[in-house]
Amino acid sequence: MRQSRLFTKTIKEAPKDEKSINSQLLIKAGFVDKLMAGVYSFLPLGFRVFKKIENIIREEMENVLGQEVLLPALHPKEIWQRTNRWQYPEMFKLKSRSGKDYSLGWTHEEIITPLIKKFVKSYRDLPVFVFQIQDKFRDELRAKSGLLRAVEFVMKDLYSFHCNEKDLDNYYEKVKKAYSQIFKRCGLEKYTFLTLASGGAFSKYSHESQTITPFGEDEIYFCPKCKIAINKEIIKEEKYQCSNCKSKKLEIKKAIEVGNIFKLGDRFSKAFNFYFKDKDGKEKLIQMGCYGIGLGRLMGAIVEIYHDKNGICWPKEVAPFKFHLIPIENIEKVKKTAEKLYKDLKKVGLEVLYDDRIDKSPGEKFAEADLIGIPYRLVISEKTLKQNCIEIKKRGEKKVKLIKIKKLPDYLWKIS
Amino acid sequence: MRQSRLFTKTIKEAPKDEKSINSQLLIKAGFVDKLMAGVYSFLPLGFRVFKKIENIIREEMENVLGQEVLLPALHPKEIWQRTNRWQYPEMFKLKSRSGKDYSLGWTHEEIITPLIKKFVKSYRDLPVFVFQIQDKFRDELRAKSGLLRAVEFVMKDLYSFHCNEKDLDNYYEKVKKAYSQIFKRCGLEKYTFLTLASGGAFSKYSHESQTITPFGEDEIYFCPKCKIAINKEIIKEEKYQCSNCKSKKLEIKKAIEVGNIFKLGDRFSKAFNFYFKDKDGKEKLIQMGCYGIGLGRLMGAIVEIYHDKNGICWPKEVAPFKFHLIPIENIEKVKKTAEKLYKDLKKVGLEVLYDDRIDKSPGEKFAEADLIGIPYRLVISEKTLKQNCIEIKKRGEKKVKLIKIKKLPDYLWKIS
Repeated sequence: MRQSRLFTKTIKEAPKDEKSINSQLLIKAGFVDKLMAGVYSFLPLGFRVFKKIENIIREEMENVLGQEVLLPALHPKEIWQRTNRWQYPEMFKLKSRSGKDYSLGWTHEEIITPLIKKFVKSYRDLPVFVFQIQDKFRDELRAKSGLLRAVEFVMKDLYSFHCNEKDLDNYYEKVKKAYSQIFKRCGLEKYTFLTLASGGAFSKYSHESQTITPFGEDEIYFCPKCKIAINKEIIKEEKYQCSNCKSKKLEIKKAIEVGNIFKLGDRFSKAFNFYFKDKDGKEKLIQMGCYGIGLGRLMGAIVEIYHDKNGICWPKEVAPFKFHLIPIENIEKVKKTAEKLYKDLKKVGLEVLYDDRIDKSPGEKFAEADLIGIPYRLVISEKTLKQNCIEIKKRGEKKVKLIKIKKLPDYLWKIS
Repeated sequence: MRQSRLFTKTIKEAPKDEKSINSQLLIKAGFVDKLMAGVYSFLPLGFRVFKKIENIIREEMENVLGQEVLLPALHPKEIWQRTNRWQYPEMFKLKSRSGKDYSLGWTHEEIITPLIKKFVKSYRDLPVFVFQIQDKFRDELRAKSGLLRAVEFVMKDLYSFHCNEKDLDNYYEKVKKAYSQIFKRCGLEKYTFLTLASGGAFSKYSHESQTITPFGEDEIYFCPKCKIAINKEIIKEEKYQCSNCKSKKLEIKKAIEVGNIFKLGDRFSKAFNFYFKDKDGKEKLIQMGCYGIGLGRLMGAIVEIYHDKNGICWPKEVAPFKFHLIPIENIEKVKKTAEKLYKDLKKVGLEVLYDDRIDKSPGEKFAEADLIGIPYRLVISEKTLKQNCIEIKKRGEKKVKLIKIKKLPDYLWKIS
């Protein structure tokens, strides 16, 4: 993409009411815009990152045989009364002109359970795995952490339906692995750990994926040996020891919950009388699991981990572009080579942001490039052209390298 | 995809409260589910069609240089007061726990105008074209036409920002062409016509894309010679004559509005004090245009046009799958060949729904295939295998053709 065409510009000062690093950097670099507390617009660069994260999640959900659907955000009161969750304090409620009561969905058990019930009658129809990537709403009183705690947010929610607990347990383990894979591909592998947490009203435990950063809102007790953790909310119950090796040497860390998985058991199938006929001819209650990841929160967590004093340093697989092509002199030869190179790289399918602006100094261009945080910066100048080269630098590193222009497409393919 | 894995099943009887053909067929075939009046879930088959339509629209919006963003559904009261639209009767309103007033977006001029204002200062920053594909809400009193008039619906909305009216006019013509292209790719070319309509509060005219069908909610005056129309709402003003050839021989037709485009002029830039510095150094008001297409409505319109007494007949480019592979005897050789063929076709990238269910009779399989409406049905039976063939039939046609199995991948590629 030509940077001259991008309607966003970088902003010198972050808004004063934004305290979190993720939203400060994302706003300054032009990835998101804040409409009001907890409500953000995704601008072209941010939207590209959003789509990359979405595609990673979608692929991994398809790998665990999830079937994709799209459920409504607007829900009727009656279904929330069935599960006694109509009074949930963080749920937005509204009325239609004709007096009907609605809520805005913050989760979708109440929609998906009666929906799947329409199609599943027998053990032969099971298991069923369904997911969606969809907009959710939560009436947050403290929306102060940027994308980490939003009022409106897109979430991937997967629901699974099983004949029995054993089948649920097996699938739950598969989703754990799929989640590791998602966080790995988003660059969070080294920082993200499976954390035992409260099961809420559904079961004794649930599992969270917690990304350790000084700015997390959660507190976890981390076992450096087993690389797993326990959420502070249940640490007392767990007697301050690792749930695996029983070591008492736990480190207290701040962390961001980037994913959670729950065994719901029969909590919702009971509420909606969702029975199936088992092999033995008996009617039994469905066993359910649910599995969530917030896309905006994940983007925020990535920025909390991957930044330095100059800006964002996107991991390769979620970066808005892989390469930032920057000619730094308004000399005909430099401009012409840059134009040709941009077209050549695009032709071979490489993702390039091309800083074709002619009213910016090299210093301005570099500062903006650092703020935006594309993994590789490719600089063309009169000096590099004398050697028929461009200069390549990895974001966050100081080392630069000269690469012959004719070898560039191949070279970039290899590292991309 | 294996049909045995699809969690939806076809339904014999349409729900009694669904009067429209589009929702009756889409529900019976398992494409959508009705949560309440005007609110639908998209199930796996419906979601696939939805994504095909989304991708067509996205490509054509990128062709007119649209930059994609994602704006929030939840809006603060203040921005709607700025434009005096807070009292719009079809807008849902709600309050947060802390007493803030919000609305749910049914359009996004109030969001996009101040957003673009943050980045555009000079004629050099113009024009700007921004679009999104996003969930909208409208408090409909008569949500009785299935997907044609929904309370919650995904819409593509494009907004354009210009230096002057001439530039807006030029872009408006480009979008007209992009819209033709979208409806053509969705199979609606022969039925969809540019229709002069009221410009509302913004300008004298707007243009709608109206798809002629007996079940449309709109009425248009169609000139068969010029292939354009005038909406009933302004026909009096237009003196019952074609706006192009001035012929009085107009046909009155029912139609579905599948798209609309508006010149907004300075209606919104004025409300938000959105000025730019022009070449002559003077501060001028931005000229705006807006351009909408409802994705669910478009899907509904396609079904209204493309169906027969047995079910849906999807146009190729929006069909959930291109081919429906159906082995009709539970004989080892038939099953084995079908399995191999399914894998081979998938391997070469063809989209196949594979009816691998063993508890359905040929009659049941064919009836369901007709209801679902995939363009090509591929039948394998003992009889076809005797000639090393499969039998191919186009949905809606009677003629069948035998094709040698070894030639099948090539043949299908050609027609797909």
